[in-house]
Amino acid sequence: MGEVKVIATPQSFPCARIEWALRIKGVEYEYLKEDLANKSPLLLQSNPAHKKVPVLLHHDNPIAESLVILEYIDETWKENPLLPLDPYERAQARFWAKFIDDKCVFGVWGATVAQGEEKEKAIDAALESLAFIEKEIEGKKYFGGEKIGYLDIVVGWMSHWLNVLEELGEIELLTAERFPSLHAWSHNFIQTPPIKDCIPPRETVVEYFSFGINYVRSLEASTKS
Amino acid sequence: MGEVKVIATPQSFPCARIEWALRIKGVEYEYLKEDLANKSPLLLQSNPAHKKVPVLLHHDNPIAESLVILEYIDETWKENPLLPLDPYERAQARFWAKFIDDKCVFGVWGATVAQGEEKEKAIDAALESLAFIEKEIEGKKYFGGEKIGYLDIVVGWMSHWLNVLEELGEIELLTAERFPSLHAWSHNFIQTPPIKDCIPPRETVVEYFSFGINYVRSLEASTKS
Repeated sequence: MGEVKVIATPQSFPCARIEWALRIKGVEYEYLKEDLANKSPLLLQSNPAHKKVPVLLHHDNPIAESLVILEYIDETWKENPLLPLDPYERAQARFWAKFIDDKCVFGVWGATVAQGEEKEKAIDAALESLAFIEKEIEGKKYFGGEKIGYLDIVVGWMSHWLNVLEELGEIELLTAERFPSLHAWSHNFIQTPPIKDCIPPRETVVEYFSFGINYVRSLEASTKS
Repeated sequence: MGEVKVIATPQSFPCARIEWALRIKGVEYEYLKEDLANKSPLLLQSNPAHKKVPVLLHHDNPIAESLVILEYIDETWKENPLLPLDPYERAQARFWAKFIDDKCVFGVWGATVAQGEEKEKAIDAALESLAFIEKEIEGKKYFGGEKIGYLDIVVGWMSHWLNVLEELGEIELLTAERFPSLHAWSHNFIQTPPIKDCIPPRETVVEYFSFGINYVRSLEASTKS
């Protein structure tokens, strides 16, 4: 099926989504590690609109945006389907994937960086978005049913990255008490091959997010002053 | 193929996308006009996560988010395909659709509502995002080739709604001088059946956006005071 390369950075969860999907499919790929502080000409030329990782290169044709790449992988390598086969179930998986990226990621990030009187409101918004995902996983082993699928890959950051954000933001969101099913899923997901073979060391994620949190907070401080 | 209903509001372009797609497919549907100032129990129950239109109901099963609904329509009614058939071309169409909704819609909206010294920067950001779309349509009749496809439907708001925003925001963005191909496409698209049969009266769009612009500006004024 031709040469596959991934332009990525190990601490980024959208990048991990692509590696997980390719490994589930059994597709070999070359990992092109990107230095985000000094972006490569290949990245800038492959994703001129966003200049962001991940980018998948298949026969040197670039594809960007992690959810778009997941669909491409699923359509190109048919074994071990990621999306459900039924159109209505596919639509539900896509709906929740967009919800994850629009609401949960930004909700958790907002709760992490918020300070002062805004903190509690931001935590409530994050919890409200997570409650929808709890309902989706209730009574199931994986979002994909008996096997890891598209939506598991999209929610996957909650099994590793979310906990780092909780620590850095001094908040508690995904607890066993609040969200028993999602909490159990998050521990199960990260133990499952091939996911567990492809998780960045915690300290690199801490370093990456610490930089981002300090940056956002300093921006906000300068706007307010 | 069963009963199809659309919960929608005529002045919203994400709702127009759904009507255009169903008409291209030749699918009959019932239009359930939603009053956004007094949302119906059916809307709240069909899209509890966002409480937003459009929602497609197929055999009473709800699907929300316009891009997700377009994929569902294309997978359910096979005649007149909306997305290209080739996986790489499909990925490109999906990438630009996301870019339209993330960058162009918010860029144009930002340029419309911006005031004072922020206005010029916001206009530049909007123009920068539109320049990418100009490159995509150059040399083509439609984004979908010889026929209207998925990406035409997604970009479609630029053929009617964008001009209202330009007027209300006292800005010029999509001019024939700056973006000759996109400008020509926008005039052609809106003349093409069945698109032209399904365009809201200009005054309803003016009223809708005026309300939104005043709301955002009053919010910003109250934050700054």
